[in-house]
Amino acid sequence: MGVVRLGYIHVRVTDIEEAKKHYCQTVGFRLVKDEGKRVFLKGWDEWEHHSVVLEEGGIGVIKLGYKVAKADDLEVIEAKAKTFGVAMERMSAGDNLETADGLRITLPSTHTIELYHNMTVTGSDVGRINPDVFPRDLVGIGAPRIDHALLGCDNVNETEKFLIDVFDFYQVERLVPDLEHQDVSLATWLSSGNRGHDLALIQGEGYSGKLHHFAFQLQEWSDILHAGQIMSMDDVPIEMGPTQHGITRGKTIYYYDPSGNRNEVFADGYTAQRDRPTIIWTADHLAKGINYVNRTLAEAFTTVLT
Amino acid sequence: MGVVRLGYIHVRVTDIEEAKKHYCQTVGFRLVKDEGKRVFLKGWDEWEHHSVVLEEGGIGVIKLGYKVAKADDLEVIEAKAKTFGVAMERMSAGDNLETADGLRITLPSTHTIELYHNMTVTGSDVGRINPDVFPRDLVGIGAPRIDHALLGCDNVNETEKFLIDVFDFYQVERLVPDLEHQDVSLATWLSSGNRGHDLALIQGEGYSGKLHHFAFQLQEWSDILHAGQIMSMDDVPIEMGPTQHGITRGKTIYYYDPSGNRNEVFADGYTAQRDRPTIIWTADHLAKGINYVNRTLAEAFTTVLT
Amino acid sequence: MGVVRLGYIHVRVTDIEEAKKHYCQTVGFRLVKDEGKRVFLKGWDEWEHHSVVLEEGGIGVIKLGYKVAKADDLEVIEAKAKTFGVAMERMSAGDNLETADGLRITLPSTHTIELYHNMTVTGSDVGRINPDVFPRDLVGIGAPRIDHALLGCDNVNETEKFLIDVFDFYQVERLVPDLEHQDVSLATWLSSGNRGHDLALIQGEGYSGKLHHFAFQLQEWSDILHAGQIMSMDDVPIEMGPTQHGITRGKTIYYYDPSGNRNEVFADGYTAQRDRPTIIWTADHLAKGINYVNRTLAEAFTTVLT
Amino acid sequence: MGVVRLGYIHVRVTDIEEAKKHYCQTVGFRLVKDEGKRVFLKGWDEWEHHSVVLEEGGIGVIKLGYKVAKADDLEVIEAKAKTFGVAMERMSAGDNLETADGLRITLPSTHTIELYHNMTVTGSDVGRINPDVFPRDLVGIGAPRIDHALLGCDNVNETEKFLIDVFDFYQVERLVPDLEHQDVSLATWLSSGNRGHDLALIQGEGYSGKLHHFAFQLQEWSDILHAGQIMSMDDVPIEMGPTQHGITRGKTIYYYDPSGNRNEVFADGYTAQRDRPTIIWTADHLAKGINYVNRTLAEAFTTVLT
Repeated sequence: MGVVRLGYIHVRVTDIEEAKKHYCQTVGFRLVKDEGKRVFLKGWDEWEHHSVVLEEGGIGVIKLGYKVAKADDLEVIEAKAKTFGVAMERMSAGDNLETADGLRITLPSTHTIELYHNMTVTGSDVGRINPDVFPRDLVGIGAPRIDHALLGCDNVNETEKFLIDVFDFYQVERLVPDLEHQDVSLATWLSSGNRGHDLALIQGEGYSGKLHHFAFQLQEWSDILHAGQIMSMDDVPIEMGPTQHGITRGKTIYYYDPSGNRNEVFADGYTAQRDRPTIIWTADHLAKGINYVNRTLAEAFTTVLT
Repeated sequence: MGVVRLGYIHVRVTDIEEAKKHYCQTVGFRLVKDEGKRVFLKGWDEWEHHSVVLEEGGIGVIKLGYKVAKADDLEVIEAKAKTFGVAMERMSAGDNLETADGLRITLPSTHTIELYHNMTVTGSDVGRINPDVFPRDLVGIGAPRIDHALLGCDNVNETEKFLIDVFDFYQVERLVPDLEHQDVSLATWLSSGNRGHDLALIQGEGYSGKLHHFAFQLQEWSDILHAGQIMSMDDVPIEMGPTQHGITRGKTIYYYDPSGNRNEVFADGYTAQRDRPTIIWTADHLAKGINYVNRTLAEAFTTVLT
Repeated sequence: MGVVRLGYIHVRVTDIEEAKKHYCQTVGFRLVKDEGKRVFLKGWDEWEHHSVVLEEGGIGVIKLGYKVAKADDLEVIEAKAKTFGVAMERMSAGDNLETADGLRITLPSTHTIELYHNMTVTGSDVGRINPDVFPRDLVGIGAPRIDHALLGCDNVNETEKFLIDVFDFYQVERLVPDLEHQDVSLATWLSSGNRGHDLALIQGEGYSGKLHHFAFQLQEWSDILHAGQIMSMDDVPIEMGPTQHGITRGKTIYYYDPSGNRNEVFADGYTAQRDRPTIIWTADHLAKGINYVNRTLAEAFTTVLT
Repeated sequence: MGVVRLGYIHVRVTDIEEAKKHYCQTVGFRLVKDEGKRVFLKGWDEWEHHSVVLEEGGIGVIKLGYKVAKADDLEVIEAKAKTFGVAMERMSAGDNLETADGLRITLPSTHTIELYHNMTVTGSDVGRINPDVFPRDLVGIGAPRIDHALLGCDNVNETEKFLIDVFDFYQVERLVPDLEHQDVSLATWLSSGNRGHDLALIQGEGYSGKLHHFAFQLQEWSDILHAGQIMSMDDVPIEMGPTQHGITRGKTIYYYDPSGNRNEVFADGYTAQRDRPTIIWTADHLAKGINYVNRTLAEAFTTVLT
């Protein structure tokens, strides 16, 4: 069955107290474990132990954890990955808090991806018996869960091929230079199931190893406004939105955490399917693809990665 | 990869002209082919040839077509289904318009399911190159696509086991008599990917072979109101809603087509995952599970199937 | 300038503790003063001292306070009211907490209306200098303010004439038996400004002196769903909705407080204007006028008043 | 009763065909009368003959028509205006199509305001007997009506005083340099009823006689997104939004018509009241007041008027 979703992400932050305040009071994630310079967080609708890990010291992404459907998937993926000659190692139970053993892969784009099958299930805040649709004690934006990440690459085609062949992702949408060069990916949106993207890539010189953003999932357009209202109250810098993407049709705000990592709140978007014809965006339509309503992009959007 | 989604549904209607008018002018589906007593329709965001087929003569469901991810899946499923001893036959290219060969299975619940891998791709109304987020010429509700079906069963556990074992569906939510009998399914919501249900079952004496409803997918809560406004203008009988489900958290209106088949417009709901703990609803909370806001159910909801 | 809005309402409740919990934890009004058997509440966006007063002992409405624009209005209204021969008296400063003197009128429908010009201004929860769009500490539904009341009458035409002639209200919409009897009001929606109704009347035998409902104002359709979700969590009985009114086009849920008084959450609706042609609803379209989406009315809706 | 609302606005456009296409196909206003170089339009929910008049030749506002509640208001206003020494003349029936006589005033800010009491009532597109909540044949954004205008002034205090004293507007919100200079209006939002603004003023050198924008009223946040989607499809330049105002709390997009006149789609906002304490915004919070979510203003927003 392969890789099914982004399960956790470790992110560097410059000031752990400031970051904790932001992710808990503004985003509304729950503090699961506080180790001082490292904290573990989760959204109210997530059932595993944690999803966001903040580590003090700089900015940028440390590693991403993707869940696999079955324990056996790890071996299948390991075998396939070998043919690409990427750096790879087995990780042990305990390498990650409350997480069993797994596989640590260095993508061609140099990002560290950990594949895991078991993390302690601590349950969501509404439980699994006759659950309410949300808990009463939401804070700030009250984000229920993480959604996806967009990573930088010096060569999207190379990493995209790896993710499709080894992780069995499929390509939902693709940015190409023009209709004559549809085989050249300048950016790619990859999914394993029915969501518009579980992992996306964007190309740029020196982008490898960098994070463009990771996203929190909200439900719909009214939640995007609510998130924007909270961001205003908490002086969160917004880069783009509220708007809709042409790509994935998701509703969105891009913003920065206090350390300068870009984040997104992302809602709905269409139901992706493996046999849905891949949508092609040409580079001259990129602004419309990202920011459908306004058709503009801040320069930072394609130049600032952390 | 197995069965991925509801691809088409054939439904009986008492008056084809009246039905055509309803599904095209009210629901907003496009007429793809008109054979007089049988018509083929599709939503603006569907890329295959058709999804809803109306056939004059009575009411109720004739058959449902589920798409499989790979041609090879047909053989795998055939082999697994044999162990259940269900009636089954190969269907030929041309048995269904613009559809290649496949597999026709009679579920333990006596419903006919056709599994297919190839239907002619005619494209969506917004195309695949730099697409707009919707076409300008929407009619009525403007539903983009079909979503799922809920079928009646005399014995849910039996058919549920078949669908899980043979179709590789997983159980997202389950209705049980009480917490002491969590292994008894009175209703079940089954998914193959990240959607709350691709196929659901509800138990009742004499329900086998019957349709509770099939659903059109809308985007969000504001679209549900818009659908309700159009239903009011067109005198469509509404059974429940606008409301939210506790089960799946989808936003919904249940209504009847002019022949008396129950339909639903269904929007958002949470992202299902194969490893998400199955949500359990006890029978005493059924009304809240179906109609979260009002916590009431019309008697017809659990007694009228077609 | 005349009467401008519903400023306060005194309502009887059977159990003051239960009522306090409902109006504060579920509706989200703030407790301003607690006198034990009588409590004063206000919404976060109201600037005067209080708006809802709950008094233990039975159910139903005790009196309604309408604000007048200028102190002089009281005399003008007193003079006009005299020609109708209704019971009337001056009320003194202190008759109502933090409220100056005014005029107490018994409507032809026997309801007590108090007209006042001055209540202590305590300010809204967001202040008046560079205010945020809502306060962070909302509870439950978080209703910002009261909106309107619908009162019962044995003879709508009579009280409607009084309210138009004396209070200078104008008629926004009217329910009539049929197009041949447009001068007979079975129900009427009266406004003083741009809102769909500041006071409405509905006719029925024995209705005089009774309350059909009073409403809390929310902003929009997404807030109506949120209110419904909270009502579900708190087991609040819902009579109708979420739906839209044909009359006023407001979005709505009707529900009951723990004592059995009917309340409404009401959002948007069109901008009324004094010169907008009065909308006429014929009795055969009443269900559509009240419950536009579903076109049904619970029997209680037109028979239960408190 | 005084001045009640913006009834019509005459705007210059550079190319009448292009403008007609924009206001009819994109905004969705109806063409009422086409005189070639001048066209009369109205929204589907407006009952008078017309509201927007486009005249070929340049850009900017020609004049605004405000409706008065009673014919007698014209004389009262004329008498009050005389004390200000502004230029003023009676206008005759027929000066404006389907409009009776009235009063033409040159504001201190040099804008031409026409006050009128009678325009032919042609009815809205949903009629006044058991009306539907919108007509089925909406085009583009489908804006139901005009809302307000924001005019430029070299001296806001002067014109504001005129509008309050003569038109009996009241001040809902005010922009001031700082809390020590709350009597200096840099911008003002004036209302006659319950809406956040019927007429607003913004100060700048050389602004007198100029238009900042005029607005179309939509219902709610989901309609703002829909408007933005249509603007994207029709290549309409957007200046700001979708966002919410801190001032009025309205939801908004600012955009330009093909001639370069700024327009706005504006939805909900709070219910204004004459006795609600005037909200004060200090100049250092202007960006938050206008663009609450993002807290940024394009330079053009405070420099480009037409």
